Amino acid sequence: MTELGEHRYGKSAIRLVKLVRAPDGHVLRDLTVAVTLEGAFDRAYTAGDNSTVVATDTMKNTVYALAKEGLTASIEDFGLVLAEHFCGEPAVERATIDLREHHWTRLRPGQNAFRRDGEMTRTASVSVGSGGRSVRAGVADLVLMKTEGSSFSGFPRDRFTTLRDADDRIMATRLTGSWRYGEAAVDHEILFATVLETLLDAFAEHTSRSVQETIWIVGRAILERHEDVVEVHLSLPNLHHWIVDLSPFGLANDGEIFVATTEPHGSIEATVRRGA
Amino acid sequence: MTELGEHRYGKSAIRLVKLVRAPDGHVLRDLTVAVTLEGAFDRAYTAGDNSTVVATDTMKNTVYALAKEGLTASIEDFGLVLAEHFCGEPAVERATIDLREHHWTRLRPGQNAFRRDGEMTRTASVSVGSGGRSVRAGVADLVLMKTEGSSFSGFPRDRFTTLRDADDRIMATRLTGSWRYGEAAVDHEILFATVLETLLDAFAEHTSRSVQETIWIVGRAILERHEDVVEVHLSLPNLHHWIVDLSPFGLANDGEIFVATTEPHGSIEATVRRGA
Amino acid sequence: MTELGEHRYGKSAIRLVKLVRAPDGHVLRDLTVAVTLEGAFDRAYTAGDNSTVVATDTMKNTVYALAKEGLTASIEDFGLVLAEHFCGEPAVERATIDLREHHWTRLRPGQNAFRRDGEMTRTASVSVGSGGRSVRAGVADLVLMKTEGSSFSGFPRDRFTTLRDADDRIMATRLTGSWRYGEAAVDHEILFATVLETLLDAFAEHTSRSVQETIWIVGRAILERHEDVVEVHLSLPNLHHWIVDLSPFGLANDGEIFVATTEPHGSIEATVRRGA
Amino acid sequence: MTELGEHRYGKSAIRLVKLVRAPDGHVLRDLTVAVTLEGAFDRAYTAGDNSTVVATDTMKNTVYALAKEGLTASIEDFGLVLAEHFCGEPAVERATIDLREHHWTRLRPGQNAFRRDGEMTRTASVSVGSGGRSVRAGVADLVLMKTEGSSFSGFPRDRFTTLRDADDRIMATRLTGSWRYGEAAVDHEILFATVLETLLDAFAEHTSRSVQETIWIVGRAILERHEDVVEVHLSLPNLHHWIVDLSPFGLANDGEIFVATTEPHGSIEATVRRGA
Repeated sequence: MTELGEHRYGKSAIRLVKLVRAPDGHVLRDLTVAVTLEGAFDRAYTAGDNSTVVATDTMKNTVYALAKEGLTASIEDFGLVLAEHFCGEPAVERATIDLREHHWTRLRPGQNAFRRDGEMTRTASVSVGSGGRSVRAGVADLVLMKTEGSSFSGFPRDRFTTLRDADDRIMATRLTGSWRYGEAAVDHEILFATVLETLLDAFAEHTSRSVQETIWIVGRAILERHEDVVEVHLSLPNLHHWIVDLSPFGLANDGEIFVATTEPHGSIEATVRRGA
Repeated sequence: MTELGEHRYGKSAIRLVKLVRAPDGHVLRDLTVAVTLEGAFDRAYTAGDNSTVVATDTMKNTVYALAKEGLTASIEDFGLVLAEHFCGEPAVERATIDLREHHWTRLRPGQNAFRRDGEMTRTASVSVGSGGRSVRAGVADLVLMKTEGSSFSGFPRDRFTTLRDADDRIMATRLTGSWRYGEAAVDHEILFATVLETLLDAFAEHTSRSVQETIWIVGRAILERHEDVVEVHLSLPNLHHWIVDLSPFGLANDGEIFVATTEPHGSIEATVRRGA
Repeated sequence: MTELGEHRYGKSAIRLVKLVRAPDGHVLRDLTVAVTLEGAFDRAYTAGDNSTVVATDTMKNTVYALAKEGLTASIEDFGLVLAEHFCGEPAVERATIDLREHHWTRLRPGQNAFRRDGEMTRTASVSVGSGGRSVRAGVADLVLMKTEGSSFSGFPRDRFTTLRDADDRIMATRLTGSWRYGEAAVDHEILFATVLETLLDAFAEHTSRSVQETIWIVGRAILERHEDVVEVHLSLPNLHHWIVDLSPFGLANDGEIFVATTEPHGSIEATVRRGA
Repeated sequence: MTELGEHRYGKSAIRLVKLVRAPDGHVLRDLTVAVTLEGAFDRAYTAGDNSTVVATDTMKNTVYALAKEGLTASIEDFGLVLAEHFCGEPAVERATIDLREHHWTRLRPGQNAFRRDGEMTRTASVSVGSGGRSVRAGVADLVLMKTEGSSFSGFPRDRFTTLRDADDRIMATRLTGSWRYGEAAVDHEILFATVLETLLDAFAEHTSRSVQETIWIVGRAILERHEDVVEVHLSLPNLHHWIVDLSPFGLANDGEIFVATTEPHGSIEATVRRGA
């Protein structure tokens, strides 16, 4: 006997630009949207019956059409509009909308010309369904470095250990993080900005004895300062910067010249949440 | 009150080439390995206590060192060697090894020169821990196309639906799939090859009324023909090939000229498993 | 005084799939095409005068429309059809067509289902203009490795040199190469296949004292065996495979365990041609 | 007779981070460097004679070693230090150094923590040799958009033309540009910043009748305002934003909702220089 287990489907990489031609300057929104549906689609798999299968092409059309009226505030709010729309389809039990916003900065006052910021991507993941709704905000590809206040020592040594204790190392990462909001109504736009400031504050100010401790300190700071956040997930690759041995060339290297590497890299991720 | 939720860490993108200089020709193994540990590492996060934290640098060293004796058979077997090694560390409750094998083909008989195949990557994910062990084999980046025997029709139409029923469409995908083996001892090398043949057979021979049905048919074929497989997970992006409208140029286009696209794309994934 | 120097424009990344529904099986062609025009377009730059500027959207349409009748043989031949078409536009002095062909292999006899090969991309660059015409064929992303017969020694040593002489090293590369045909009419399809075989033969069979010597030997072999080729250009990054020091773990490593790297890498390129 | 034509070699993707631990705050430099040498290396190709071939590993060491004293000012200045060093090697006739600088911004005053900017990469290409020396500065991956003041009309119409005249379109591009300095001594750091401001000013303020005209206007502005620049090269892909047809959904779309695309894209590049 064979049976269908978990299944989901949707449309990914929907590239949407919305331009609001306001009299005092254009407002530019640039999103990449993915729609994922879960529900009673079993017979599409097992019987070739598409009668409940919302075409992914329809999902794409829906994103563009609803953007006209529905994309006026945050991507979290637009995600809710989309998720609730799709939950109105007969077979749908859960609709999840993943959004990435690419930010643009006006180049010069009075000119409708823009430059895309690239220092990170803002993300949101909104899910609506029978089991309730969930709104997560986050960031991706936020590249950070501490050149002071980072150490790693006291780890166990076995016969394969060659790494030395480091009292003062470079810690560099390409941070991906997201945080889930509770039930209370919030201003997603303001809250995103303030949580991000907290994240950057905590990263800048803390002393780290490991990437693990960094995750804990940053996650806890967000929870402590933002009561609307109930959980934080952080994923921090450890992008190693190795000191170059310059002694063959008769030169000292007192923490000055490094080789930046990406392969291999450490991978540390954890959730920090409000406890019971 | 703040608490630590789920957490894991490890080393990713460990690039390993092993060369066995056999008298009748070199044997080349080319792997990318990731190690992930779960366990009692809480105090590293919450107290900066690294006394149980196996350094990810040690993980890397271990992969290279154990490759010398331990990488003689399949990547699944090497994964087991590594996972069981790391489970010997005090705090570790579960060790997961993800492996990707890049296959090379001998260029000419009698010459130790090779060409890397690129039509797919073989994958394995091996997990050992207190809750038992799991061995998955799989493929990634297997790009497939059916130019006959694929349709999509009978889907619901709402006010955002513009897609027409298609009796005969191109179906193209970049397949990622994996399957989990049961408890019985198996020859991973032989089983991988035969499951892959089944997957390709089923993909080539079936008639598809949706990507969903394709997943079901391919997954079921694997389960039916390979009793050692207990579950199959398939993820098939739908890489649309749209017919180009040549009528403005006075030309017919009877399913002959297509534009291949990647953005947006459908995303369909499901698990097929043995039922009760 | 400011003047316009060299300029060119065109359309890139035109993704074209052509399907010929032959009775004994579909034939699948999958190309990425770029069109580049040079000519008397100065006034578009300096005066905003677009009266001679073939729209790049028109170029795209032309590629799709001409594919119907014009893409029956090799990509070189299709490139010539396109280049000659664009040379018929008033301002055009030179049209260059760059083509990449992605090869697909039939999965099973009798089934119109295919698997994309990924071990390399076939390329062509065809240029037609007032100064004559040029046809180049080539390959990209052909990943090759020699595990025997490669050395590098006798290089100069200065105060920054730490590399040791290597009598027996791994040589790995991601080869990009192209060769130009002379004036004689040739069968591009057959010639591509035989030149590629020569390239692979030479790579497999030769003994290399440097990547430079490899380029010379491979290029010369192509010129010697294929009189229709007048020039070969080869670009071979040197993708280093470093021996892992296993001695801290009490293990020998006699050319068995390597770390594969891509950053940094050597870059060696040269042209080999028929002399006077 | 076979002969060696043009040839060059070097080391690419050398990843260098330099950290200056100044009392009032760390200064972080993050570069990717490539070294390319041309010269009398023929016998390496044709005779396996490596006696003049500076090992690319030595090049890498040299970049790290010279960074200690030589990387104090601009990347152009560091490129000159490196190029002149390599020109001291016996066989070298020309040394070219390509540099990319990844900019980091201090996160918080008083903290040695940084965030990588991603809105562009600063580039330089410095070449020293028997034929003189050349210093180019530039930018890569600068993503810009004009939502007003861009049109494209009056282009020729043939039987493959379907594009309509556009009086008001979105123009988006990922700009790559570089400019060459003359012989006079300049402050590369200041000049880079001011040329970039001119580039952004011109892009923001001009009215464009084509991407071609944009290149001319931007290039001319740089030449007019910066006498030390003798030539500007600009490459502007045209990243099309197509208006989505919302009429099937009973909605107007007056330049509000767009789909952002990357395949296919226009490619326009030109040099603007001082005339006779």
